[in-house]
Amino acid sequence: MTADSTAQPSRQVHVDVPALTELLDGQHGAVREQVRTNLVKHADVLVDAETMDRDAFRDRVKDVVLAMAETGATGLGIPEAYGGGGNIGASIAAFETLALGDLSVLTKVGVQFGLFGGAILQLGTKPHHDRWLADLTAGRVMGCFAMTETGHGSNVADIETVARFDVETDEFVITTPHDSARKEYIGNAARHGELAVVFAQLEVSGEQHGVHAIVVPIRVDGEPAPGVRIADSGHKLGLNGVDNGRLWFDDVRVPRENLLNRFASVSSDGVYSSEIESQGRRFFTMLGTLIQGRVSVGGAAINASKVALTVAVKYADRRRQFESGEEGTEQLLLDYGMHQRRLLPLLAKTYALHFAQEVVADQLHEVFSHTSGSADDKAVRLLESRAAGTKAIGTWHATRTIQECREACGGAGYMSANRFAALKADTDVFTTFEGDNHVLYQLVAKGLLTDYSSGFSDMDQFGMVRFVAGVAVETVLEKAAVHKLLERIKDVLPGGNEDEWDQEAGLLDPNYQVAMLRFREDHMLGGVAKRIKGGVDRGGNPGEVFSNVQDHVIATARAHVERLVLEAFVSKLETMPEGDNKVALNLMCDLFALSVIEGDRAWFMEHGRLTVQRSKAITAEVNALCRKVRPIAVDLVDAFGVPVEMLRAEELIG
Amino acid sequence: MTADSTAQPSRQVHVDVPALTELLDGQHGAVREQVRTNLVKHADVLVDAETMDRDAFRDRVKDVVLAMAETGATGLGIPEAYGGGGNIGASIAAFETLALGDLSVLTKVGVQFGLFGGAILQLGTKPHHDRWLADLTAGRVMGCFAMTETGHGSNVADIETVARFDVETDEFVITTPHDSARKEYIGNAARHGELAVVFAQLEVSGEQHGVHAIVVPIRVDGEPAPGVRIADSGHKLGLNGVDNGRLWFDDVRVPRENLLNRFASVSSDGVYSSEIESQGRRFFTMLGTLIQGRVSVGGAAINASKVALTVAVKYADRRRQFESGEEGTEQLLLDYGMHQRRLLPLLAKTYALHFAQEVVADQLHEVFSHTSGSADDKAVRLLESRAAGTKAIGTWHATRTIQECREACGGAGYMSANRFAALKADTDVFTTFEGDNHVLYQLVAKGLLTDYSSGFSDMDQFGMVRFVAGVAVETVLEKAAVHKLLERIKDVLPGGNEDEWDQEAGLLDPNYQVAMLRFREDHMLGGVAKRIKGGVDRGGNPGEVFSNVQDHVIATARAHVERLVLEAFVSKLETMPEGDNKVALNLMCDLFALSVIEGDRAWFMEHGRLTVQRSKAITAEVNALCRKVRPIAVDLVDAFGVPVEMLRAEELIG
Repeated sequence: MTADSTAQPSRQVHVDVPALTELLDGQHGAVREQVRTNLVKHADVLVDAETMDRDAFRDRVKDVVLAMAETGATGLGIPEAYGGGGNIGASIAAFETLALGDLSVLTKVGVQFGLFGGAILQLGTKPHHDRWLADLTAGRVMGCFAMTETGHGSNVADIETVARFDVETDEFVITTPHDSARKEYIGNAARHGELAVVFAQLEVSGEQHGVHAIVVPIRVDGEPAPGVRIADSGHKLGLNGVDNGRLWFDDVRVPRENLLNRFASVSSDGVYSSEIESQGRRFFTMLGTLIQGRVSVGGAAINASKVALTVAVKYADRRRQFESGEEGTEQLLLDYGMHQRRLLPLLAKTYALHFAQEVVADQLHEVFSHTSGSADDKAVRLLESRAAGTKAIGTWHATRTIQECREACGGAGYMSANRFAALKADTDVFTTFEGDNHVLYQLVAKGLLTDYSSGFSDMDQFGMVRFVAGVAVETVLEKAAVHKLLERIKDVLPGGNEDEWDQEAGLLDPNYQVAMLRFREDHMLGGVAKRIKGGVDRGGNPGEVFSNVQDHVIATARAHVERLVLEAFVSKLETMPEGDNKVALNLMCDLFALSVIEGDRAWFMEHGRLTVQRSKAITAEVNALCRKVRPIAVDLVDAFGVPVEMLRAEELIG
Repeated sequence: MTADSTAQPSRQVHVDVPALTELLDGQHGAVREQVRTNLVKHADVLVDAETMDRDAFRDRVKDVVLAMAETGATGLGIPEAYGGGGNIGASIAAFETLALGDLSVLTKVGVQFGLFGGAILQLGTKPHHDRWLADLTAGRVMGCFAMTETGHGSNVADIETVARFDVETDEFVITTPHDSARKEYIGNAARHGELAVVFAQLEVSGEQHGVHAIVVPIRVDGEPAPGVRIADSGHKLGLNGVDNGRLWFDDVRVPRENLLNRFASVSSDGVYSSEIESQGRRFFTMLGTLIQGRVSVGGAAINASKVALTVAVKYADRRRQFESGEEGTEQLLLDYGMHQRRLLPLLAKTYALHFAQEVVADQLHEVFSHTSGSADDKAVRLLESRAAGTKAIGTWHATRTIQECREACGGAGYMSANRFAALKADTDVFTTFEGDNHVLYQLVAKGLLTDYSSGFSDMDQFGMVRFVAGVAVETVLEKAAVHKLLERIKDVLPGGNEDEWDQEAGLLDPNYQVAMLRFREDHMLGGVAKRIKGGVDRGGNPGEVFSNVQDHVIATARAHVERLVLEAFVSKLETMPEGDNKVALNLMCDLFALSVIEGDRAWFMEHGRLTVQRSKAITAEVNALCRKVRPIAVDLVDAFGVPVEMLRAEELIG
């Protein structure tokens, strides 16, 4: 540790909490404040979630959503011409902030304005916008996003609902061919939805054109529309304020105009046309426009983690347990080394993810604000990958953090009044919806392995295996820049001598930390590519080859995403003025980076990038960082700006 | 890998499922079958948990408990003279099996017959037994175990409720001195309990004698008894069929005879007497008699994991997702390498924990069947440590396993009908109740560090620091047998050459696996002892010294417990006849052992017990074992014998 460029001073750090909140809130601070105000106004909904029966609570959640819609805070992503805010970045900020409150409200907002509204906006054209956007933005029409089927969750390209064009009547005929093709878990379907954007295999003049989206009325005057069968998905682990349901279509007819035709049209004489030739690419282009859902869920998960950490850290700073060893008083929980270990690296990761999410939300805003639809293709693919990865890491982080915080509050944490019950139950499905996390990490890895080739997101894992096997490994490696690694390392490290980097670089040097994560990512990526190619060359079938390397694939994606997260945090720090807040965030960044390296130190030792001594030094440094963070931990959670009414933890934290 | 003494054959293993179930059920197979029958009979309670309101569900749970009590299956630990079964081992087996069903029923059984009944039985004497045991066994009197207070969860020795002896009236006066001394989370208190065993600081003739247990009527004809205030603890994350409540005592008077006086008495003229001199030791002797609660919760957690794994493994063997790469059909989830990685090591650990739990339950039966109370003191202390450790590892395993299984079933796993919702919510508090897991691991480590000295469980962590600092480290190390390690290793390893053990021993040799876990445990223990002594010698106060080594203390306990678990599994295998079932369990044992080593391979590399090559070989072997287990995975979960009615997963697994 000879080059600690960001060495921490031993004097006490004084966090300027309001300034740090302002930094975290970012450019959409006013929007976040408006949402906080809305949340406080409707804080009772947190209690209603426990006490009301399911139908009453669903109606209550709908009312809250409509009340919030009136303030304009839910439709920020819809164009101003239709009563929205016309600002995608603001829309993400609002959604993230909503996650500080009841998550059924959040999810219903996501279904109505993000999924349903987003589909109409992104997949439809002006007639659809004129017909529905103003009504849905005001909440006058509630709608569904009907993609998932019982038989096909993650593999949405193979859903089986059929939309056949009937040239005689100029209508589409929507059919559920068998029971496992029913639409499943569809939000707004069981009780409130009147319309659904239904994804179905389009059939025109006997030809199949793949999955397309069509607007189908599912309820008229509160009753199922003719030919539509609706059932309740039933009680769920959480989010019981959202009316998830099942839908079956029995030759339901809708006018041709109901096809959302931004990417493909059918003429009245039964001619199909699209600018995108490949069925698969067309569908994944459609899916790509819905990236916003993933960005939203990732941000929501990160903010839910903030709520849990706020309660747990403040509790640990008040609660005493067992004699302190000195004066006969009991010791504060947060003074115990193990308790610091349990909570503070999670706090650091929450900060890191916050800034990584900020980057992805900014990119989303950037790419989707090209209203002409002319956003650079590769930028879209990179964003798609980044959104997938951030969603996966953020939602897994939420599951783990909320669990640890619950346990760290003991029996009190088990009482519903103290917030963890709802946080745990409601966020649990975040790892699954808007894309199962393992599937999303595979998407990330596919991007890396194919250098974001134009068709990568359209490929299934076996297509990816064939792709990688079909090019020279050197090409993959070269494209993925694996071999450039050592040169890069020489550039970033003090002394510039690759052989000594492990000895020379300081643990708290961000260049060292990033280089370590870079090395891991690139090494893993090269390894996966070689194993895939080798497996196929040895005659393995793609299924077997993929099965054998799948854990390696997932690990590669995780390594990539963690590197992006660290880089986002480091970049943010570079923009900050000197001062105690920067010192505090430097501690968070170091704790995050070294926790990641520590967590995978076996890998680094196995690959020659950590000596035994240095590995032990990293563990010691993580402990030391925890002790340094301890005195400012409460300030760091206060800076999240979670309204006290959202904590519901009077007994825990006073 | 030159000495694979249990090398696996490449031919397909055929599991004899009924025979494996019989092996798992063990000596109390008939009791387990009776409980399964009871569970199936009352299977509707799983649905009622979702649909009934709280009070109705609490009454329903009570009715089920009483119906089960009639079959005799809930009072197996109570002496036959009072209508019980007089068999502690059978009682644990019954409780464990109950965990396959609704866990509010399980918990209410635990409160009534285990905690309340156990306190009367173990802390009381014949007059108490005669007065209450028959009634409570039949469920005619419902009771509470009122220990925990709001201000004191884990640190029960410092609770503040007072029981003052009034010599004038020959009564105890029970008082809650201030609000944070109220009894909290007390099962049976909010609705059904009539009596409570109240733990309070005993004061006789102005002298303090520490915590004692007194029977206090809390409800008369359904109304709170005079001077008793009762409140509902409110909605909880799970277990809402159990009526947890709060109790305050306002100078409540009970006759002197209500003191449970097995370990201490008060005469009518106000003279206190006890055979145990130290207050602390007396209290922890009392607590020690309640070990059964920890053994029960550990076993329940392990069985709840079996339910989750049964659903998830069977689902993964049916559910297809994405093209298989060959025939155009989709591939089964369980054929994916990552999916195997997610589920199968957890399955192996569940088997390992099952057999470890069997050992602890047998020891409990052995120790507590010395009805004369003459069980060997050290045996009690060893059991206490083992019960604490098994409870901690078992309950953390349940939390992790149920979460992974839920995620592995995707959206379907989120539907309450598919069982994970209740499993997750209800088991979540297992890591906290009957002793917070971190506190229990500290108890385990204290036992190791003090060589189970007679007062160890009475010591708080700072007492332990002082103890360790007060003896020569060599003594601690010698007592803990740390230095005998290398000799032992030489004995167990092929070739007998310590320097070559790492190279020579086969990964699948159980002697190698056990030796690795032994080495880790002993090395960690020695390191903790040295760090504690060094910290104190350098003038640190015990609080700081403990805080700095706490993560090391916890890691040591975990290492110890994992070694015990592996040894239990290995010993079980040695008793099995040759055949495919033994081959199958050998696979489970290898997968468990190598997963543990893999999970801590960084530590083994840091301490010179794994080379980089061998570390990578272990990861490869874990993957290979997963592939070998895959074809028998369904048989292995079927052998758990979870009644299909308890799975509630028709849609997932048919």
